Amino acid sequence: MITSHQNQLLKEIRKLNTGKRDGGRFVAEGEDLIAEAEAAGWKPIHLLRAEQEVSQDALDKVSSLGSGSRVLGVYEEKFAEPVGPLCVALWGVKDPGNVGTVIRSALAFGASSVALGPDTADPFSPKAVRASMGAIFRVPVSKVSNVSELPGKKIALIAAEGERLSGPVVEDTSIVVGPERFGIPRSTLADCDAVAHIPIQSESLNAAVAASVALYELTNRLQTA
Amino acid sequence: MITSHQNQLLKEIRKLNTGKRDGGRFVAEGEDLIAEAEAAGWKPIHLLRAEQEVSQDALDKVSSLGSGSRVLGVYEEKFAEPVGPLCVALWGVKDPGNVGTVIRSALAFGASSVALGPDTADPFSPKAVRASMGAIFRVPVSKVSNVSELPGKKIALIAAEGERLSGPVVEDTSIVVGPERFGIPRSTLADCDAVAHIPIQSESLNAAVAASVALYELTNRLQTA
Repeated sequence: MITSHQNQLLKEIRKLNTGKRDGGRFVAEGEDLIAEAEAAGWKPIHLLRAEQEVSQDALDKVSSLGSGSRVLGVYEEKFAEPVGPLCVALWGVKDPGNVGTVIRSALAFGASSVALGPDTADPFSPKAVRASMGAIFRVPVSKVSNVSELPGKKIALIAAEGERLSGPVVEDTSIVVGPERFGIPRSTLADCDAVAHIPIQSESLNAAVAASVALYELTNRLQTA
Repeated sequence: MITSHQNQLLKEIRKLNTGKRDGGRFVAEGEDLIAEAEAAGWKPIHLLRAEQEVSQDALDKVSSLGSGSRVLGVYEEKFAEPVGPLCVALWGVKDPGNVGTVIRSALAFGASSVALGPDTADPFSPKAVRASMGAIFRVPVSKVSNVSELPGKKIALIAAEGERLSGPVVEDTSIVVGPERFGIPRSTLADCDAVAHIPIQSESLNAAVAASVALYELTNRLQTA
């Protein structure tokens, strides 16, 4: 059982948990997330359970959840290809909580994949993994550098521009969601096939909320169509 | 100009900014939020601009945004009555970011008020104020202890229970959203008039996303009806 805080593996985990991911590994913490990973067929490279592989005290010290953490797994990240029929692409969304929340909503509304464009938060950071509530283990996540890599018709979601976003989708579609403040860069917009908006009475929505409402609109009506 | 970190006002602000709110005052930071407050008619009790009322160095030290903060205002909190036609009520939602995000979505989708039940995060905490993106200055926010205080028909939003939530609203309505993990307490449920759900393919949605999609469903179709 690991008890020393100087243990090499614990040092690596502390690094991963403070956002210093340089390789392909990431950490998931807590019994729920570990169970989700297992149910989805992800095998941990390391599994550290309190008072089994590691002392509670040593685990507490590297935990991103704080004192009393029970279990922690180290996994190898997996990126996939962006696939349809419905892909949600985040473009410049820097908040890892928002990225994780969108992955969670993608699973909830049955989107086929989540694509992450340039300057978008790391989906395998501790905060994103937590916000995904385990959906990170189920939804194909891809990295893309250009809108042209996305499947199907590319719709940019922009406040108060284009047509009202209206589902259900009838062809392969990618919905592109930008950061709240500056929106999708014009050069990226030029590569999209259409622009649409969610009608609102104020100026903006949280990026994860906007992406989730878009997914609801594009997929959910399908179920009652 | 305040330059000393020992200044009494700065000490009070540091307290407010670290979540130790005991009285009715709260802090909003950043030019956008301060502008939103002013546009909505909120007068700051104190307004501290860098290199005007306070040195940049001293402001940095109390800022919740970190170094380079330009302006900070101290305001008196205002609670209102829960009003219809559409009230969104959060019941036991403990994450202040979620509470702020719901207030922002309430403004976006034209809900009339946000009500906060027991064990719900402080809407005037720094994190909630920031997440609201200034909507806290525009949307009436109330504290309630019982569902019976809410206006109109009370619909509890619960995963996979009741009917599919379907808009637009045709009578005064309150939509009650609980925490993700444990849901709305059964005793609270008993006081609601109906139970409804958002159809999803996974187990759950982020609470702010669930409330926002509900507001979209209940209000947005109205605009095209």
